[in-house]
Amino acid sequence: MNDVIFETVVTTVAPDGRPHVAPMGVRYRNGQVILMPFRPSTTHDNIVATGHAVLNIVIDTRVFAGCVTGRREWPTVPAEQVTGVRLACALSHVELRLAEVADDPRRPVLHMARVHEARHAPFLGFNRAQAAVIEGAVLVSRLHMLPAEKVDAEMRYLQIAIDKTAGPAEHEAWGWLCDAVARQRAAAAAGVRA
Amino acid sequence: MNDVIFETVVTTVAPDGRPHVAPMGVRYRNGQVILMPFRPSTTHDNIVATGHAVLNIVIDTRVFAGCVTGRREWPTVPAEQVTGVRLACALSHVELRLAEVADDPRRPVLHMARVHEARHAPFLGFNRAQAAVIEGAVLVSRLHMLPAEKVDAEMRYLQIAIDKTAGPAEHEAWGWLCDAVARQRAAAAAGVRA
Repeated sequence: MNDVIFETVVTTVAPDGRPHVAPMGVRYRNGQVILMPFRPSTTHDNIVATGHAVLNIVIDTRVFAGCVTGRREWPTVPAEQVTGVRLACALSHVELRLAEVADDPRRPVLHMARVHEARHAPFLGFNRAQAAVIEGAVLVSRLHMLPAEKVDAEMRYLQIAIDKTAGPAEHEAWGWLCDAVARQRAAAAAGVRA
Repeated sequence: MNDVIFETVVTTVAPDGRPHVAPMGVRYRNGQVILMPFRPSTTHDNIVATGHAVLNIVIDTRVFAGCVTGRREWPTVPAEQVTGVRLACALSHVELRLAEVADDPRRPVLHMARVHEARHAPFLGFNRAQAAVIEGAVLVSRLHMLPAEKVDAEMRYLQIAIDKTAGPAEHEAWGWLCDAVARQRAAAAAGVRA
């Protein structure tokens, strides 16, 4: 599939009402939103159980950096037309209904129909630091499988955009990512010593 | 100044009506839009002459990649409340009036007040390939002052996001940037031979 992939945040609720926040790359096709979560996936299980999800368009990169560094609780507000929640910080959100599943043991494809959408704040333009946080979050999510030199080189490169164009939210998000890299190094070093 | 910098496109018109399209990093402060063009700057001269500019929020990265590779003509439509134009592809635009200039021989600061704004299309979320094109456009705008190895290493890194998440517009924009790097290399090699 060669569609453009957009980095968004999908919110779902478990059958017991517990919310789940998951950054996710999504595709838009024929008016639908296509989700392809890797199993095991709480997002997948919640959608199959409840039939709904909410797509959040978010530029507060702390959500993306937070979710890969153990900060998975973000303020939510109830969805308007489906059972579920949206992120309080969403620029806009789309309430979705499960229309079709192409099941797969590794990566099922969920075709989600739009039920309702609402806009909450304007998009103000590209910010290079926000993009650097997104790239850093991808790196940190793969720390266990990447060589340290590659991670260091890419973090150094991304740091440039942080230094030049970040605001307080991006600096905070970037700090979480740098801490995660340092923690993983310390854990690896402790493993070597042990 | 530590405000977040947003990558946008500023459109202005010369006193004779000729439009000018310029990608520009802008700041938002106290409801105003702050422009800091490097002189010499057609954008600066047009704003001082006419008193107006239009801020375009654009996610079609071909405008950014195009403007650094000699493609400066982009479809525009008339502004609604000021003399000027906006980009046809803008997701949203803000019509601006020059409120204050802090003049400077190198980098004057233009404080622009909002006159009118309008939204034309939704923002669909971060796209890593769009961010890679923005970074690539920054690189290409500085080709003459960067070592070839640095440019190659960064383009190789950015290529990953292009391969994974781009659509046709991003592939076209990226192709223009790669061509510009190849042209500069060929010109440099010809200079060495001469």
